[in-house]
Amino acid sequence: MKTYDTMTREELKGELAQLKKEYSRYQSMEMSLDMSRGKPCKEQLDLSMGLMDALNSDADMYCEDGTDCRNYGVLGGIEEAKVLLSDMMENNPDNILIFGNSSLNVMYDSISRSMTHGVMGNTPWCKLDKVKWLCPVPGYDRHFGITEYFGIEMINVPMSETGPDMDMVERLVAEDEAIKGIWCVPKYSNPQGYSYSDETVRRFARLKPAAKDFRIYWDNAYGIHHLYDHDQDYLIEILAECKRAGNPDLVYKFASTSKVTFPGSGIAALATSSNNLEDIRNQLKHQTIGYDKVNQLRHVRFFKDIHGMVEHMRKHADIIRPKFEMVEDIFEKNLGGLGIGSWTKPRGGYFISFETMDGCAKAVVDKCKKAGVKLTSAGATFPYGKDPHDSNIRIAPTYPPIEDLRTAAQLFTLCVKLVSAEKLLREMQEGTAVKAESTVKSEDASKQS
Amino acid sequence: MKTYDTMTREELKGELAQLKKEYSRYQSMEMSLDMSRGKPCKEQLDLSMGLMDALNSDADMYCEDGTDCRNYGVLGGIEEAKVLLSDMMENNPDNILIFGNSSLNVMYDSISRSMTHGVMGNTPWCKLDKVKWLCPVPGYDRHFGITEYFGIEMINVPMSETGPDMDMVERLVAEDEAIKGIWCVPKYSNPQGYSYSDETVRRFARLKPAAKDFRIYWDNAYGIHHLYDHDQDYLIEILAECKRAGNPDLVYKFASTSKVTFPGSGIAALATSSNNLEDIRNQLKHQTIGYDKVNQLRHVRFFKDIHGMVEHMRKHADIIRPKFEMVEDIFEKNLGGLGIGSWTKPRGGYFISFETMDGCAKAVVDKCKKAGVKLTSAGATFPYGKDPHDSNIRIAPTYPPIEDLRTAAQLFTLCVKLVSAEKLLREMQEGTAVKAESTVKSEDASKQS
Repeated sequence: MKTYDTMTREELKGELAQLKKEYSRYQSMEMSLDMSRGKPCKEQLDLSMGLMDALNSDADMYCEDGTDCRNYGVLGGIEEAKVLLSDMMENNPDNILIFGNSSLNVMYDSISRSMTHGVMGNTPWCKLDKVKWLCPVPGYDRHFGITEYFGIEMINVPMSETGPDMDMVERLVAEDEAIKGIWCVPKYSNPQGYSYSDETVRRFARLKPAAKDFRIYWDNAYGIHHLYDHDQDYLIEILAECKRAGNPDLVYKFASTSKVTFPGSGIAALATSSNNLEDIRNQLKHQTIGYDKVNQLRHVRFFKDIHGMVEHMRKHADIIRPKFEMVEDIFEKNLGGLGIGSWTKPRGGYFISFETMDGCAKAVVDKCKKAGVKLTSAGATFPYGKDPHDSNIRIAPTYPPIEDLRTAAQLFTLCVKLVSAEKLLREMQEGTAVKAESTVKSEDASKQS
Repeated sequence: MKTYDTMTREELKGELAQLKKEYSRYQSMEMSLDMSRGKPCKEQLDLSMGLMDALNSDADMYCEDGTDCRNYGVLGGIEEAKVLLSDMMENNPDNILIFGNSSLNVMYDSISRSMTHGVMGNTPWCKLDKVKWLCPVPGYDRHFGITEYFGIEMINVPMSETGPDMDMVERLVAEDEAIKGIWCVPKYSNPQGYSYSDETVRRFARLKPAAKDFRIYWDNAYGIHHLYDHDQDYLIEILAECKRAGNPDLVYKFASTSKVTFPGSGIAALATSSNNLEDIRNQLKHQTIGYDKVNQLRHVRFFKDIHGMVEHMRKHADIIRPKFEMVEDIFEKNLGGLGIGSWTKPRGGYFISFETMDGCAKAVVDKCKKAGVKLTSAGATFPYGKDPHDSNIRIAPTYPPIEDLRTAAQLFTLCVKLVSAEKLLREMQEGTAVKAESTVKSEDASKQS
């Protein structure tokens, strides 16, 4: 197939006319599809309805240690929930705190605490002139939203298939004491689905930050969210690696069951060193008497153990894997060889990342919207919503029913073609326009002369 | 009966010997009772076990507006939960946000937000040299814990049966711009069980604080927690009164179902003006994607409406009313007319407040502890844990089984008598000692001369 940039103007014009006709057909379908967020679909939610029976009115509401889960107390989570989540996170139960329903909330609170009270005795960030943060891009918009909200200056760090540009990360944290953290989604990253290489994790654990209160915000949101039974990504466990590297306090690791059971009704956890835990507990005891222990117990009774959780995640995979594969097939079929876009093929997580030609992402998202398919805003995957190349689009295939998703993916590829063809033609015409204009000018000049 | 302070030294010595014998008897019982916190008892928790069946695996998990409660979204709470909680709080559903499991957490987060981002465009408190707070005393230790944690200077304001000393409150907030808030438990206050009078509420709504970002933290923790069917306290609704007084933004009002269903697994809410809500939402959208909607729906399905909730609270009252009355009876029988203690007789809430003679509270709590009954630490009801008169003790009658509570109340009155008798004897002896010492001195003096 001929790539778009090798087409003649006439060929492109013909192609564009065809694409526009097809686009009109989609518009007449009056679709209304929301693919903007990484939400599980109804069938995935149905998998966890057993959770609603895990504790009924006849249930034993006591923990193994005799705690009545219905009453006040137990700040850091019930023991059996720590065991379950520690198996999920590959950490020691002693290094875990269980929180409420949202790990994002835990991250926000961690930054908020650092602003008002500092990290392990260091100056509260609100007393500093400047706080900076490293942001691997593209990344998760809600991460960037938190740091922006706290007035923290965000610095883009390019992502590759092996993780963030570690040369840049090492250099920046070593030379600038104002840099206090970095957002990481180390496994099946949002939005690319990349997993950090062993080398990347090792280098993270060996960072030598100028700031003693620098922390890696290791958001392991997709730790057990594989799409395949055998073709899974493995990461070196970061807490253990930091400890081995002599940097035990360097990392906060976050996770939750939001995309395991119910988003918004799961349980969240933070794993970190004993020193960090003590620091956090000293704040937490003022913030709350404790989180929802009944829901913690409900999760434990439902899954029983990590094996139950893994089996459960296999069912999730069976539902969403065909969606990922279908989208990738449609992309390949409709865009393969055209030279106007590339995309990732993750083995887990919730997203596919799409790269258009420079300057096309916004227009593609806009065109999809006008035909009834809402995508994540272009730019959202970058700090301040500014994609310097206007080329990245996050595709979230999980939520729509598969037939809707098929239509949406077809429409998406159509929009990519349309916008790309328009861009190339515009560039050609601008080239012509410049020529024409200079012709006119020289004609004028000749008249005047 | 003869009051202790009119007894002769010999009478007191006789009394003390008797009391000590009785105390030994309690010590030999080797009790282990925890009355330190305002916790519901097992029978109260059992009342809400139906909550566990309100959503089972066959349940319709959709809200009335079609929202799937299991998925992401809906930042401020589902509509039907707003309706239920607004009926509970006597506010408009449009003025309510539903949060997670803890209203204390909402209060903490409100202060934290004010520290980092300020209130409605005003300077963030962390940028100010000094922030001060008014604390009606005795009060709730966890309130004081939050303000202390944020380094906010706390100023004691005396409580009376009608509420805080409003002359003092009015004067202080009008003259000192550094005062940014006041802790209030307006109904069945913690620990006295006092409810603010109409006059007090009216004066609160008409405060003229020097600080534009002054807010009343109106913790209506016991709004529907009556002990009696008819003999209930009523308060003027504060939001409505502030609106009428032309001060619509003056108050944040907090409540939760922690002592309605399960502590730690209930739902919390904040009611306030539209301006304040907008201010809070602007922060909240960065902090979380949303709170536990499944638990919100579970509560709505369980109670159905406010009438269901009120009937439910009547069952709570039937369980804990006899406990309050028994404690008050024992206090009256054992301490009435002795002039060594006084106590409140609340019509709702979770506590009885006890006043010993000056300088006796710590010793009483200590003596109870040594006989196996743990009370709230003396001093805990004051900022910085410092009761200037060392006289206030918070009694929490709800948690222990009634027979244990009887023993504990008997022990408590015994300890009050013991400590009081010891104190009076010591004072007499110190009087003597001073005399004896001066005698010795004069003898010495005569020798030297």
